[in-house]
Amino acid sequence: MSLLIAITGWENGAWRERFSAELPNHHVVTTDDAYDPAAIRYVCAWKPPSGTFDTLDNLQAVFSLGAGVDHLLRHGELPDVPLVRMVDDSLTLRMSEWVVMHVLMHHRQQRLFDRQQRESLWREHTQPVASEVRVGIMGLGVLGQDAAGKLSALGYRVAGWSRTAKQIDGIECFAGETELQRFLARTDILIVLLPDTPDTRGILNCDLFAGLARDGALPEAFPALINAGRGALQVEGDIVACLDDGTLKGATLDVFETEPLPTSSLLWTHPLVTVTPHVSADSQPDALARAIAQQILRHEAGEPLRNVVDRKRGY
Amino acid sequence: MSLLIAITGWENGAWRERFSAELPNHHVVTTDDAYDPAAIRYVCAWKPPSGTFDTLDNLQAVFSLGAGVDHLLRHGELPDVPLVRMVDDSLTLRMSEWVVMHVLMHHRQQRLFDRQQRESLWREHTQPVASEVRVGIMGLGVLGQDAAGKLSALGYRVAGWSRTAKQIDGIECFAGETELQRFLARTDILIVLLPDTPDTRGILNCDLFAGLARDGALPEAFPALINAGRGALQVEGDIVACLDDGTLKGATLDVFETEPLPTSSLLWTHPLVTVTPHVSADSQPDALARAIAQQILRHEAGEPLRNVVDRKRGY
Repeated sequence: MSLLIAITGWENGAWRERFSAELPNHHVVTTDDAYDPAAIRYVCAWKPPSGTFDTLDNLQAVFSLGAGVDHLLRHGELPDVPLVRMVDDSLTLRMSEWVVMHVLMHHRQQRLFDRQQRESLWREHTQPVASEVRVGIMGLGVLGQDAAGKLSALGYRVAGWSRTAKQIDGIECFAGETELQRFLARTDILIVLLPDTPDTRGILNCDLFAGLARDGALPEAFPALINAGRGALQVEGDIVACLDDGTLKGATLDVFETEPLPTSSLLWTHPLVTVTPHVSADSQPDALARAIAQQILRHEAGEPLRNVVDRKRGY
Repeated sequence: MSLLIAITGWENGAWRERFSAELPNHHVVTTDDAYDPAAIRYVCAWKPPSGTFDTLDNLQAVFSLGAGVDHLLRHGELPDVPLVRMVDDSLTLRMSEWVVMHVLMHHRQQRLFDRQQRESLWREHTQPVASEVRVGIMGLGVLGQDAAGKLSALGYRVAGWSRTAKQIDGIECFAGETELQRFLARTDILIVLLPDTPDTRGILNCDLFAGLARDGALPEAFPALINAGRGALQVEGDIVACLDDGTLKGATLDVFETEPLPTSSLLWTHPLVTVTPHVSADSQPDALARAIAQQILRHEAGEPLRNVVDRKRGY
């Protein structure tokens, strides 16, 4: 039984070694190797090359090597087998680290103090405590819920918004189109952890930003945007326009319409924007390989696969 | 019964209003007002002016308006009445916000990504998860314990060091001179929340920095120093020298030998230093006034004062 690694942008050989170590009784190949298509039972994919799925007549499942599956759902040739999302603790923990850090940097105005340092300027500023700051998280999956818990522990007033209604202890939950405006109107710092689906593409635009709270405890810093979901969610021209006219007071972006972010993008140099190069939830390759290997062994023991994507919903 | 506000560097009148609101049955005056010294029962002080305590023959207690009492213990004329430290939740919570933010900024290499952004450079870097990062806190009072709990919740491996032995759930505790080297040798990110006492002055020097871990998960970023205790703890020339020779890989400082930090200081412009202007644990004036008023009412009801300073120990 063979496992095919189909990735672009990462190094093939290291992944073959990792999976071989985790699954010593399986034959592991990459799209660069010669292999018998009929022997392939599983594909582990990140932006798989065109033609990857041709003649894989005995394929049983496709595993995404990232949290998102948009790179697979947009692949024109995806076969009709279970498609499995990556849910991995190390990915979740790192995402929460990144989210908590950037919420704190907006709330505690670290960028203002950075500017002051560049001018050797010693000046204090009024600072609200976390309990006076309303954080709102769009997307209440595994990542959103973990971040929500950690932000609550720091004292923030945390609410969340999701497509379908959820109940989470200590978090005010809003759901669906009808409750979006109420959610935005009570949000000082907006964190976006939504997947890329037909419903969410371009959702981060001027209309949405205009709905955010105008009565925050720190008018010079709020509302602020933090996007670590997907670049396709955001209209980058709208972000720049809303920063320039004061609708947004700051933005931290880890994902972009085009990645790597083109050097020509205004976001690189905008004084109110923090750019990180899609590193928020860097996962540990060893941990990912282990998580997928466990799913494969469970599947071969007759147990159901976990985290199977609902293709209609898009995640 | 009168309460005297004796401060320098802050605005007198606002403090008189706050205390008058909290203690309507007391007469509240400042050192700028005319008052009868024999009527003064309490002094609320922050760097009190010279002569403040002259002829206050009926004084019962002195309250510090900040977490530290070094500004009072060094005052040449401090009378022999109970001296009360400020312990206030809003101060503790803000300190933990600031500490967690700067630990994350070292761990997740935010300054490296800041430099990359200035060059429009898109480049990922290997990043350990928090559980591979060893944080060490010097000072395990109210502030140190709160920060320790919040850093543990994010997954960090947290240890603490204090003058006298302590036992805290989930935190590896070291104590005294004899255990200092073992504490340092397992520490990637050193957080300093010690008070300023004769024992701690100048403790942050080359010798101490040389004892920090050399085998951290991120050799380009660890060891790092975060000081939010008191500026008198640090030898600033040693910090610069240790950053320049690689003994330290980064430093975040909120307190300084001289405050405001002189514009001539090399710390302002050092590429590996983050300077914030003593804002880590900004407290809310209303909350401070309320906390002291509650102590006074408790004292007048015959109950013991809390958080009384041990003058020999220095905190």
